[in-house]
Amino acid sequence: LLLHAGAGDRTQSLNEGEPAWHDALRAAVDRARGVLESGGTALDAAQAAVASMEDEADQFNAGRGSVLCADGSVEMSAAVMRGEDRAAGAVAGITTSRYPSQAARLVLDSPHVLLIAQPADTFAAAAGAEQCDPSYFATERQRARLGDHLAEVDGGTVGAVCLDTHGNLAAVTSTGGIRGQIPGRVGDTPVIGAGTWADAYAAVSCTGQGEAFIRVAVGHEIAALVRAGVPLAQATGEALSAVAQVGGRGGLIALDAAGNASLPFSTEVMPRAIWRAGGDTITLIGPAEAP
Amino acid sequence: LLLHAGAGDRTQSLNEGEPAWHDALRAAVDRARGVLESGGTALDAAQAAVASMEDEADQFNAGRGSVLCADGSVEMSAAVMRGEDRAAGAVAGITTSRYPSQAARLVLDSPHVLLIAQPADTFAAAAGAEQCDPSYFATERQRARLGDHLAEVDGGTVGAVCLDTHGNLAAVTSTGGIRGQIPGRVGDTPVIGAGTWADAYAAVSCTGQGEAFIRVAVGHEIAALVRAGVPLAQATGEALSAVAQVGGRGGLIALDAAGNASLPFSTEVMPRAIWRAGGDTITLIGPAEAP
Repeated sequence: LLLHAGAGDRTQSLNEGEPAWHDALRAAVDRARGVLESGGTALDAAQAAVASMEDEADQFNAGRGSVLCADGSVEMSAAVMRGEDRAAGAVAGITTSRYPSQAARLVLDSPHVLLIAQPADTFAAAAGAEQCDPSYFATERQRARLGDHLAEVDGGTVGAVCLDTHGNLAAVTSTGGIRGQIPGRVGDTPVIGAGTWADAYAAVSCTGQGEAFIRVAVGHEIAALVRAGVPLAQATGEALSAVAQVGGRGGLIALDAAGNASLPFSTEVMPRAIWRAGGDTITLIGPAEAP
Repeated sequence: LLLHAGAGDRTQSLNEGEPAWHDALRAAVDRARGVLESGGTALDAAQAAVASMEDEADQFNAGRGSVLCADGSVEMSAAVMRGEDRAAGAVAGITTSRYPSQAARLVLDSPHVLLIAQPADTFAAAAGAEQCDPSYFATERQRARLGDHLAEVDGGTVGAVCLDTHGNLAAVTSTGGIRGQIPGRVGDTPVIGAGTWADAYAAVSCTGQGEAFIRVAVGHEIAALVRAGVPLAQATGEALSAVAQVGGRGGLIALDAAGNASLPFSTEVMPRAIWRAGGDTITLIGPAEAP
């Protein structure tokens, strides 16, 4: 199991609250572990980890505590994909579903793959997903930050990739987008093949300057390279280089079917977590600590 | 230059109006030829061809004459991509922009890549794109068809791929989605890497059961195979086989950088056109006529 909580530059709030980031990552790993240890699938576990991070209002840019659009609204996107059968679900620009990752999962379990805007929330609600007033998602912290100088890469998108004991890969990503974005802007998170991808070869969840990640189709690119025999770490490196070629920075987490892990990023930090069955949870923020 | 006007089953209206389909395809080719012959780029030409088909109310499922959602509304999506620099633009779920392909092009020319729903129309309008009342797009023919038995694959999405004399590839796709779809449902058309893709190796525009095309990342899959040395026709065949593996049917048009063309489909028909500089325009509907 790998988690990320966004690739970005080292911000003051991160420096001041670093222990809380480690704690929140660890809590998300624990949720996923619980799911796996009670027989849940890779997809169930990845979704549980992301839901844990969506509920966390002070650290992450997903679910409650998401960044605000230029008009002060919160628009969230999420995607899930199951490698075994390439089933996928995504939602973009939703405003009332408490767990965007759950809304995406409900889409996966339907004949649809991508639903957008208000009808996506309506669909999720009809399928049983908890709904909240849009004001629930907009925290005081994010209201205060909206007026701040924008960091080039803001970070905070969350994601999880998982390989279970049955050999199934899955990927889940959830985001509030970019601070100050115009309403209606959607990044790579809900674009299956870009920010989120899982097939029989690799599971990938991305974070960073979403437009660049879409233009490189990062998720599918990595899986296609792995399928062609390229080692995972080389494949993720090539994909991030391609992102840089189109002017983007960011990071990603990836697993292949053999359990190899790769967690590269081209920003200053990418809070992330690694857990393998029988092992300890490792949480990391910056590059110097890379395993 | 290759065009498609959707992959689907042979319908009564197609049988009765087949000459009109050939005429409409030919008119779209002529528009693109004019652009190329006056020095326009591959992207300009592909966009012009698609705009011509978006204006055509009686044949195609894009722009005016798009299929209706279950609630009688029209929601359109489009995407454009330029192979040279992988610049991309897409809109999903728009309702007032006369030419969805133009709205997508305006997104390409902005810092964004994907804009959705009403804000996407607002963005396009601010950038000068002609807006219409939503009722402009809903034709009597489509109102009557909404109550009909749904064909499994309805067809009518339009697309163009082009290679210009400078060696630049481009792809454009535009659609009204699936007849009777729930509002908010989005298929593969605006998913860069799925229904629409162009890079230095290949340009691809797809049509068919969009959910399956997303799950295979068809556009990027074909370009990645071509980059790996697989002949274009083999690459498109493998991608359509993968679509079938996840339960989908449809078709696509693809060009590689050497000018090889591939126009496969797994449905009964895919109205399509082929034009090479100095040659005649070829328009085709069914498989028996395949070149």
